[in-house]
Amino acid sequence: MTLHPSETAFLEGALQRASDYLLDPPSDSDPVISLASPTELLAEFAGSVGLPFSSTSEPAEPDDLLHAVEQIIEYSMHTSHPRFVNQNFAGPDPISVVGDYLGAVLNTTGATYEVAPVFTLMEAAVLSKLGRIAGYVDADEVPVEGDIPALPPGIFAAGGSMGTLLGLQLARHRHQPDISTAGANGDRLVLFVSASGHYAAAKSAAILGIGSDAVIKVDADASGRMIPAALTAAIEDAKAGGQTPFCVIATSGTTVTTAFDDLNALADICEAHQLWLHVDGCYGGSALFSKTHEHLMAGVERSDSFVWNLHKMMGMTQQCTALLVKDPTQLAPCFAAKADYLFQSDKLFGEFDSGDRTFQCARRIDVLKLWLSWKFRGDEGFEARIDHAFNMIEHTRKRIAESNGELVPVVTGEFTSCVFAWLPSDLRDLPRTDAGELDVAALSDADRERLHAIPPKIKAGMQRDGSGMIGYQPIHGLNTFRMIAMSPTLQTADVDALLDAIRAGGAAL
Amino acid sequence: MTLHPSETAFLEGALQRASDYLLDPPSDSDPVISLASPTELLAEFAGSVGLPFSSTSEPAEPDDLLHAVEQIIEYSMHTSHPRFVNQNFAGPDPISVVGDYLGAVLNTTGATYEVAPVFTLMEAAVLSKLGRIAGYVDADEVPVEGDIPALPPGIFAAGGSMGTLLGLQLARHRHQPDISTAGANGDRLVLFVSASGHYAAAKSAAILGIGSDAVIKVDADASGRMIPAALTAAIEDAKAGGQTPFCVIATSGTTVTTAFDDLNALADICEAHQLWLHVDGCYGGSALFSKTHEHLMAGVERSDSFVWNLHKMMGMTQQCTALLVKDPTQLAPCFAAKADYLFQSDKLFGEFDSGDRTFQCARRIDVLKLWLSWKFRGDEGFEARIDHAFNMIEHTRKRIAESNGELVPVVTGEFTSCVFAWLPSDLRDLPRTDAGELDVAALSDADRERLHAIPPKIKAGMQRDGSGMIGYQPIHGLNTFRMIAMSPTLQTADVDALLDAIRAGGAAL
Repeated sequence: MTLHPSETAFLEGALQRASDYLLDPPSDSDPVISLASPTELLAEFAGSVGLPFSSTSEPAEPDDLLHAVEQIIEYSMHTSHPRFVNQNFAGPDPISVVGDYLGAVLNTTGATYEVAPVFTLMEAAVLSKLGRIAGYVDADEVPVEGDIPALPPGIFAAGGSMGTLLGLQLARHRHQPDISTAGANGDRLVLFVSASGHYAAAKSAAILGIGSDAVIKVDADASGRMIPAALTAAIEDAKAGGQTPFCVIATSGTTVTTAFDDLNALADICEAHQLWLHVDGCYGGSALFSKTHEHLMAGVERSDSFVWNLHKMMGMTQQCTALLVKDPTQLAPCFAAKADYLFQSDKLFGEFDSGDRTFQCARRIDVLKLWLSWKFRGDEGFEARIDHAFNMIEHTRKRIAESNGELVPVVTGEFTSCVFAWLPSDLRDLPRTDAGELDVAALSDADRERLHAIPPKIKAGMQRDGSGMIGYQPIHGLNTFRMIAMSPTLQTADVDALLDAIRAGGAAL
Repeated sequence: MTLHPSETAFLEGALQRASDYLLDPPSDSDPVISLASPTELLAEFAGSVGLPFSSTSEPAEPDDLLHAVEQIIEYSMHTSHPRFVNQNFAGPDPISVVGDYLGAVLNTTGATYEVAPVFTLMEAAVLSKLGRIAGYVDADEVPVEGDIPALPPGIFAAGGSMGTLLGLQLARHRHQPDISTAGANGDRLVLFVSASGHYAAAKSAAILGIGSDAVIKVDADASGRMIPAALTAAIEDAKAGGQTPFCVIATSGTTVTTAFDDLNALADICEAHQLWLHVDGCYGGSALFSKTHEHLMAGVERSDSFVWNLHKMMGMTQQCTALLVKDPTQLAPCFAAKADYLFQSDKLFGEFDSGDRTFQCARRIDVLKLWLSWKFRGDEGFEARIDHAFNMIEHTRKRIAESNGELVPVVTGEFTSCVFAWLPSDLRDLPRTDAGELDVAALSDADRERLHAIPPKIKAGMQRDGSGMIGYQPIHGLNTFRMIAMSPTLQTADVDALLDAIRAGGAAL
């Protein structure tokens, strides 16, 4: 059956617009966003096909829908713009976009070999490589070429929160091996994460029926790093109070200040208390790609599970999350449902099916884009990406240091972000800590209130003129900017322009 | 920053190959699969860039990687082939592929308005429309044009299993409003689903800490439909045994026989016992698009939550799942984490953020493809897709009836599937039920064993010669074929060819 000519015409037109954008993404001379309110967007699209659907929706005219495609592009956030530094993802590696597109064209699911033969092997290949990098798999035990493990050291998950949810279920499963069938046995389970850790811990605990109150927030130092002695104290307190610790979540690259917990110190504590160590390396795990920076992840090989978002630092499209597990034989007992309509024992190559090793049934093919990008760029390309991001954040720190106190670090950071404040001219001699950071604790209430109100105003101005997209968030109760170096499109000139835009925005307040 | 010429060359080459496939997908004259074992695939790819990654992975030659792209296409399952009827998804609507691709190019997440302004409104628009179709939203209360609800009646989820997991958490949240913080209160919660229901219920119960033993399988009739009286009895039994029922999962379109539970009967029981009614309409929900067949979903408007996979019947690419909820004000209390680095109260348009109404943080943009396809095809196009699938399955049933007993229905089905057996010439007078279906219960052990072994052999033969891809699974302990009509590319000639291939395969045994 061939496509209708109107389908082909629309498809070719829309493909062209998407590919043009991919091959020639927005540059410094374009706005990072054409900001529009919901009301404005509704009015804009009313000129093409309308955003809403009426009670009887007629087919749109193909040309009107092509116009709508152009509007979608025009009014969407240009995450590929070099000056999008708003979040711990950015514009995609274009190689990954093509992998994503090819996966969509071939539209299948990752559950069984019979409908995903190539992708099943790719998953095993990529997970094996990631497992070796993480030290989960002894490199000497893996044949270098020509073979793929039958049971790879992990699974792909639908995002980092899902990866943490599954990691915690694995942890609970080891504590109570009949959890999947019998349900929770009444132990008052608690888990530990640093006060700077991601909210996926709380959300996962809610779903698991443990409850977010059972997520014990362990004190972190000023940079956001969990204090190991505080963890030990928290574990002992919990035990003394009749609670049952079962898991520690270490954070490798906290969301806001990209702090790295000391994995070896936490592993020591987990071994002493027989706790599962889950590493949330969604953001920071990619330090492992760089020989210069892999030390941040030292000790990860001692953890039990490790979730790693390749759609953050590595520029894979949303989403590409690997949940690595030290002992992959635990996956099936924890998650299998043995559906006999899908995982037939009498079909061809059914022993390679991955679907019964995870929670999801149908799974989008998230591995293809990573496989393709890695093959294209090689280990050296992945390493260069990380090192470039470090260079750009070093440049940011340098520019901040050179700003004569107009910009001041609040959390300098050890990874690819830097949290800082812009100060009005009369507040440039505020107290600094020994590390040269703004001493937020020493601020007067009046100064704090005044400084707190500044970043939203500067950011809104930048959104309106499209000069840059940078995030802010409260640190120690004070709104602060966060520069995140992520994409190879970010260059020193972009860093300078972003900082200049902040200074100009501040001056205009 | 512009792309390197080698990147551009590879991207253009790979895009061309993907688009060629999209615009001219495999047809009847092509094999549905070029079957290869893992060993064979490893050997094939060794001729281009290799499937595995060695300990030091060099960048591939772009031309070699383009060759690998061709190999990926060649050896993947051609789900777009008209004779791929293996599963309750098939080749994608090409419009949805372009939406998917455009979403990847624009790479952002659905959590906040500031990085997804257009997509946030599209989600609200599509969920509002789906909610009206399901009767969750009174059509008269929704302005027909030009407005979009601030709080849409649902969320998008990463697949049907995830949708059911979140639906069950909402159900538990209503039963115990402090579940998300305090954790399970010790009630021995149980939920009910038909014996033919999807395994997502058991998998979700495991994650929730309820345990799969707490999923009470309610007897279904021979077609797979839950018996309402059995549900009432099961609820009363559970209560008498000290268990606490909190939810019933109704199945609209069971995975294997596409049976539809009687939603009104189940809603009556849920109202009487004050239980949450969750509808698993992942497969069958799309009957609502057809005026001829929407009666199968009668009563869905009385349910509390309803998960609907648009990547099944509607041909959206993997994945496109809507979880509709009757009372969307329950979403935030159940799932919110109020992360202050993301959902700032002082930023522009933050009140439109959807991220705190679900479990996921970063979410792939799954709405764009559905919005685009629906705008292109209109309600009438969506209806035609469903009606075409019904016509094709009616044709299948007719051909089976005309086969002189060589093919025999096992579960005729009321939706877009038909479960049937192929019989050797000496077994064509086996007993039939009153409905004309094979009386599986009346089979001798010897006949059952002999028939059971047939479908895997016939299917393997079809995989080897690429003539078709059709699933089989045990029904009442007997392996049977399942024809699923799904895609508009499936035509009567394809149905005939598939049945002929099965007959030829049987004759050659």
